[in-house]
Amino acid sequence: VSVQRSSHGLELLLEVSRERGRLHRQIEDGVREGVRSGRLVAGTPLPSSRSLAAELGVARSVVVEAYDQLAAEGFIEVRPRALPRVAAAAAPPPAAPAKPPAAEPEPRYDLRPGAPDLALFPRADWLRSVRAALLEIPDAELDYGPPEGALQLRATLAEYLGRVRGVRCAPGALVVCHGVAQAMLVAARAVAGRRARVAVEDPGHADVRASLEPHDVDLVPVPVDDDGLQVDAIPPGVDAVLVTPAHQYPMGAVLTAERRAALVERSREEDFWILEDDYDAEHRYDRAPIGAMQGLAPDRVVSMGSVSKTLAPALRLGWMAVPDELLDAALAERASFDRGLPTLDQLALAEFIARGALDRHVRRSRRHYRRRRDALVAALPAGRTGGVAAGLHMTLALPAGADERAAQAAIRARGVAVDVLGRHRIASTGPPALLLGYGRISEAAIPPAVRALAGALED
Amino acid sequence: VSVQRSSHGLELLLEVSRERGRLHRQIEDGVREGVRSGRLVAGTPLPSSRSLAAELGVARSVVVEAYDQLAAEGFIEVRPRALPRVAAAAAPPPAAPAKPPAAEPEPRYDLRPGAPDLALFPRADWLRSVRAALLEIPDAELDYGPPEGALQLRATLAEYLGRVRGVRCAPGALVVCHGVAQAMLVAARAVAGRRARVAVEDPGHADVRASLEPHDVDLVPVPVDDDGLQVDAIPPGVDAVLVTPAHQYPMGAVLTAERRAALVERSREEDFWILEDDYDAEHRYDRAPIGAMQGLAPDRVVSMGSVSKTLAPALRLGWMAVPDELLDAALAERASFDRGLPTLDQLALAEFIARGALDRHVRRSRRHYRRRRDALVAALPAGRTGGVAAGLHMTLALPAGADERAAQAAIRARGVAVDVLGRHRIASTGPPALLLGYGRISEAAIPPAVRALAGALED
Repeated sequence: VSVQRSSHGLELLLEVSRERGRLHRQIEDGVREGVRSGRLVAGTPLPSSRSLAAELGVARSVVVEAYDQLAAEGFIEVRPRALPRVAAAAAPPPAAPAKPPAAEPEPRYDLRPGAPDLALFPRADWLRSVRAALLEIPDAELDYGPPEGALQLRATLAEYLGRVRGVRCAPGALVVCHGVAQAMLVAARAVAGRRARVAVEDPGHADVRASLEPHDVDLVPVPVDDDGLQVDAIPPGVDAVLVTPAHQYPMGAVLTAERRAALVERSREEDFWILEDDYDAEHRYDRAPIGAMQGLAPDRVVSMGSVSKTLAPALRLGWMAVPDELLDAALAERASFDRGLPTLDQLALAEFIARGALDRHVRRSRRHYRRRRDALVAALPAGRTGGVAAGLHMTLALPAGADERAAQAAIRARGVAVDVLGRHRIASTGPPALLLGYGRISEAAIPPAVRALAGALED
Repeated sequence: VSVQRSSHGLELLLEVSRERGRLHRQIEDGVREGVRSGRLVAGTPLPSSRSLAAELGVARSVVVEAYDQLAAEGFIEVRPRALPRVAAAAAPPPAAPAKPPAAEPEPRYDLRPGAPDLALFPRADWLRSVRAALLEIPDAELDYGPPEGALQLRATLAEYLGRVRGVRCAPGALVVCHGVAQAMLVAARAVAGRRARVAVEDPGHADVRASLEPHDVDLVPVPVDDDGLQVDAIPPGVDAVLVTPAHQYPMGAVLTAERRAALVERSREEDFWILEDDYDAEHRYDRAPIGAMQGLAPDRVVSMGSVSKTLAPALRLGWMAVPDELLDAALAERASFDRGLPTLDQLALAEFIARGALDRHVRRSRRHYRRRRDALVAALPAGRTGGVAAGLHMTLALPAGADERAAQAAIRARGVAVDVLGRHRIASTGPPALLLGYGRISEAAIPPAVRALAGALED
């Protein structure tokens, strides 16, 4: 047993004791056992002989002798000016992964909604923000951060959301979270503890429901029409109403001013909370921007957003503006899932927004999406599309009585992936339709994709 | 209502319609209303007149007229070659933050355990990894990532944990999570659904218990001694046993080989799971490394770790090696909290480990901590310290009958922050002691800190 000095090599778990016999044998036995048991897998680098000798407090020749023997037996490979590595031939093949990869091949044309164009992600610009965050963060902020999120991001977001979305909230009323799905979960638990009764739009986002269902939230479907959520149809006795006012998912309606006012009034009278998913609000093409509902009633509305549809889902950064009365409960729920969000990512986003890079990126992306939207509308039959004024997808009505799933499969057989409206329905019925996204497809690929799609529907 | 062109300015939520009268008046009214309602706070930048005119489809002179009027009224400040900003005088002061900052001043000497030395964080080296991740990530991986974590990180971790900790697991058996607190929660729910009965060390880490308590986990205290957890004292009928074998927190014992074997045997006979918090395993000073228990029984042990004690808590990256039988349940629980971890951070850590930077950082840090440990042992009375062979803290026995909290307060009054053993006890009793960490204090500050501490204890 030894004390390491100033060696700079790799770490290696090895039990060696002067009382247990010859040291080079013990090193050999340790590595052999590691390889045989599977903990040292093929390609694993080992410390240099100099480094391991220093670590163990033995002469370098002892380690060299052990490594030579292991190499002769085929357990490791020793090459000049490189670290020794566990030999591929010696290590048992790694166990098969627990989950086999999905069998379905990638579609030729991807018209599924759900993500922005990831090729537009501003890598160089984001790197600049990450570097600034990493170079400027005080040491103390590398510790566990505040559970509600980094103050710098909350202050920047409060200003940004006020300017761009009409959200009225102090930095202290913003809670940073891993995305809208988590914000929704936090809000649902904050409004009513363990078993909230939450009214949701029908049709509404299936993925949002999926993230609430494992957590004992009772979802009550409420129909939507061309004016958005049918506020009159919300049954009494709910704890909260989940709504997408700026751009109803998936139908694309805007919640009218009358319904917004009615929803706020009912929420005050019946004491329920409004959970606003400020979904896709940044992507609008031929209409004025529509502010978040939160601005109407900051004391009744939890407004939630993220960078998943503007920058990239992989960043995992979202937020919620929370009424004062709910703030403590929301903070406690958020903190119950983990000990906070990565601080550097939060500071990078704050820097990115503060210097206007998010505004620029949203504008630049909007031009791309608008051209694709135009190309898609032009290629599809007039009068069959819906929800085209905003967002990253539209609806395409199928002939009455058509089977959405059969149409989807036929289209998929032609190499085009689409989503179906039915997947987002709970209890509602209505004409069958496809959902066509244009976040993942280039403008040039749209005409051939639509030809393939139309061909499948004509068969 | 208009269509934006290729302007590059900032976004601004503003409702303007040619049917509602003079356009410059509408811009003025919109900004005034935004400032008065509090959504446009002092310092908020507004689009340039050129950019806003393009956005609204009006002549630039219309916006210039509106901005001039707003500036004359004191709502905004207009300066040459800078964006207009909301004037400090016009905007209502932001609401007071919901939580007042903690009143307690920072201690002169911080001997609280719980964090590594954040000044050692390898900023330049980490930036190199982040840059590599950002430049090399394929577009498709900027989408939502796999809920179990990025494959590249899981593969790198499997090799690293095998080499350094003796963990035997395929990449497919590793689940990435936000830290050990979350891993523990995932494991506790995976072993028994909603109401697990989990045996925990007493004394044991108070923060770990705090992260399980909001989730309806029944904690059953089991005493520890100089050989670690008293395996014989585990009551029958538990679903899992939470243990810190490499370095018991907070007493510092190593779980003996006999107890490890006995724990595994009982876990097989009584069908409970072992949850191994592989805490502080990297920091050991004058003893050989001790492998993770997982290597003994990969089918019974969930082994959990993170970079919080080696790199920085702010990174929020941890992992768990999960037995095959528990894997589906663990993945479902992990995925129920949010839609995955930040991908770039995971790829950065994979790159950082793969090129040996984590090994180098751990070795370098260990030399610092070892000198501080030595300085602390030298400054404290012989025979009163415990748990000095590893970790980032030690125990200091107080005289029999001493009041830990009173001692802590007296020491704090001299400018030294320490932790007390009692905070980590559940049902156990025993001699009073302080916990002294050396992650946050420089070597040079240790003698004066100990003098202040000793002075307080003598009073």
